[in-house]
Amino acid sequence: MGFDIKQHFRRGLPAPAVPFQGYPEYNFVGGHNDNDSIPVDELIAAATRSLEAEGRSLATYGLTSGLQGHRPLRDYIAKRLKDSAGLRDGAREVLVTSGSMQGLELVNALLLEPDDCVIVEEASYGGALARLKGAGVSCRAVRLDDDGIDTEQLARLLAEQKSAGQPAKYIYTIPTVQNPTGCVMTVERRRRLIELAEEFDCVIFEDDCYADLLWQGQRPPAIRALDTSSGGSSRVIYCGSFSKTIAPALRVGYVVADWPAIAQMLALKSDAGTGALEQLVLADYCPAHFDDHVEQLTQIMRRKCETMVSALEEHFGATAEFTAPKGGIFIWITLPEAVDAGVLALAAIQQGVAINPGADWTVDGQNNRHRMRLCFGHPSHEIIRDGVAILAQICHREFGVPQRGGNVARGDSR
Amino acid sequence: MGFDIKQHFRRGLPAPAVPFQGYPEYNFVGGHNDNDSIPVDELIAAATRSLEAEGRSLATYGLTSGLQGHRPLRDYIAKRLKDSAGLRDGAREVLVTSGSMQGLELVNALLLEPDDCVIVEEASYGGALARLKGAGVSCRAVRLDDDGIDTEQLARLLAEQKSAGQPAKYIYTIPTVQNPTGCVMTVERRRRLIELAEEFDCVIFEDDCYADLLWQGQRPPAIRALDTSSGGSSRVIYCGSFSKTIAPALRVGYVVADWPAIAQMLALKSDAGTGALEQLVLADYCPAHFDDHVEQLTQIMRRKCETMVSALEEHFGATAEFTAPKGGIFIWITLPEAVDAGVLALAAIQQGVAINPGADWTVDGQNNRHRMRLCFGHPSHEIIRDGVAILAQICHREFGVPQRGGNVARGDSR
Repeated sequence: MGFDIKQHFRRGLPAPAVPFQGYPEYNFVGGHNDNDSIPVDELIAAATRSLEAEGRSLATYGLTSGLQGHRPLRDYIAKRLKDSAGLRDGAREVLVTSGSMQGLELVNALLLEPDDCVIVEEASYGGALARLKGAGVSCRAVRLDDDGIDTEQLARLLAEQKSAGQPAKYIYTIPTVQNPTGCVMTVERRRRLIELAEEFDCVIFEDDCYADLLWQGQRPPAIRALDTSSGGSSRVIYCGSFSKTIAPALRVGYVVADWPAIAQMLALKSDAGTGALEQLVLADYCPAHFDDHVEQLTQIMRRKCETMVSALEEHFGATAEFTAPKGGIFIWITLPEAVDAGVLALAAIQQGVAINPGADWTVDGQNNRHRMRLCFGHPSHEIIRDGVAILAQICHREFGVPQRGGNVARGDSR
Repeated sequence: MGFDIKQHFRRGLPAPAVPFQGYPEYNFVGGHNDNDSIPVDELIAAATRSLEAEGRSLATYGLTSGLQGHRPLRDYIAKRLKDSAGLRDGAREVLVTSGSMQGLELVNALLLEPDDCVIVEEASYGGALARLKGAGVSCRAVRLDDDGIDTEQLARLLAEQKSAGQPAKYIYTIPTVQNPTGCVMTVERRRRLIELAEEFDCVIFEDDCYADLLWQGQRPPAIRALDTSSGGSSRVIYCGSFSKTIAPALRVGYVVADWPAIAQMLALKSDAGTGALEQLVLADYCPAHFDDHVEQLTQIMRRKCETMVSALEEHFGATAEFTAPKGGIFIWITLPEAVDAGVLALAAIQQGVAINPGADWTVDGQNNRHRMRLCFGHPSHEIIRDGVAILAQICHREFGVPQRGGNVARGDSR
């Protein structure tokens, strides 16, 4: 009998991966980006220039900047965040991470112990929710509306947790182009959030990965930028990424926090630095091109969003309720309660349509089974139109809604 | 009073990092490489070609290959390991990792539970030892000689652990250019190791990160290649890296194992894939250039090793005992018992000389305080000569040995 390595695995492992069979044809999941928007020529030029200038420093871990991240890239990140989001941090407060997911993991490793409580927006990033569940902490959901977190309810939650002897450790928020709802928290709410975090002495973890993809107007200042009341130190840990603005396959994100937190996360970051070639290329590319690139990309995303909204109206009609997002790459959709989006997802993938069921993107998965997230960043306009049409057919077949052809006028309730 | 985020940190964190002040002038620690050997022009050409051909696929996580790693790179790794080390694995058995350290962490996450026992070579990679301590497992040291693991002692250790009701979970070995001793395990010992692992039903974890840097002759087959007795499945998990052969700042390593283990490690790998630009560049560069590059690099390392050996003989004389390594980038040195290399390291860094104290590179740190590892891959010949001279002076000042000018003829015992 052959040796069976599975006998030696530790207990409690997650389900094993299945062999990759290619991405589905109608790929409405994941933070993938628009193929044609990858700035290939400029990245080649940046790779050439930066390798000519600094390629030999690939011989040392972390180039010549140590493991906190390539210094010119950290300088760029600090400057860009000052200009766009109002942050006052320098390169010392920036830690380059291997994607923003590593940022989430470092923040959790920094702050959380089992049985801690974390407050999370009722609908939130699935990867963050999964990590919090994995860390064994309890998540409490705070309500969202078009203006972001309902701070009145937040005040009650914080008070409840304090009374229960389990004060919230941090509040996790995606304030600017919220994932998955696409809303943007108002400045007033941001200020109130900071007041509440001070009153109940908890940390705010601000995930700003989509903030650059706002359709129009100036983005509000980051919450970290508004937190000025604590004698120069801030209770806000901020993270961002180049995945959504340049390319997700480049694994480069960043955390911005006061130095004591950065120093501790740097000690926890055990990967001997984030890939240096990707950092070199971004440090060369971004100062000259980032702003223009993002402006163009945002308009491409906006048009894809319009295509998806049209397709949803045409094929789902009033069956799909949603608020048109203010930016980003996804739409958060509420279906009739009878629809189980988990079942829909399993049926849809058989026909090459991938969707995120709402249960994975909410704190209270059980009561959000009739919701789904559709991403429009990667698929072409044609794929969006065809995929939504196929999805509507499958939904009709499985749940009887929408009505066939369902281009019913949608109500104002969306 | 200002907000103090440290009040919110979890308990039991490691010591925080200190701000990076540049690498020390005489840098004899870390797996850094030779600056002038970085194949900058070829990497630029590879970046240009691969981005032209596949740059648009940066828009999807994992390019078009999913998160297991860029398929052309996995194909290359499999082919290269077949040719050089005798492995019979295909791309399906290869997981690209964000450096080989991530490989170590994935193997530990796959196999280890607290209170498990792992058998480790008495002197071994500090990063692996630190991770095992962090995982809360008990490490038992197996003796090394010039032919690798002392398999007779290994048999006794395995039997002891079995009798004690705590059988070894895996045996961690660096058989080909061992870190830090530079020895190479004989084929006979490799076969015996496999027999013992079968008899005591434990996994072998073969870390082959330095195997390409053998000074001369054919390397022995990998242990994984020799493990043919179990009906087609293997109990050997193999890992390697491009850090030592191309550049450490490129964070690309790999694990090779049977698919059930790969599938499970892929599920545990939570970083959304290893940096794609670095994978693209390596997949383009390696098929045409890797073998020639490594052949040249190896001779450069060999000459640096000769320079370090000469400098040690000149400045330490009989005070420094060592076996000249058969490859790699480091020398493992035994000093008189009165020398505490930890104290020496602290004194030396004040004068810009960095060394690895033996306590960090051994299972039984307490009894190896008089040993040290010196890396010669990064520093120039001049820096090696000067740095060893300064180190000898410091050692003399702190411990009275070596005698000043100490170019005493060294005995045969080295």
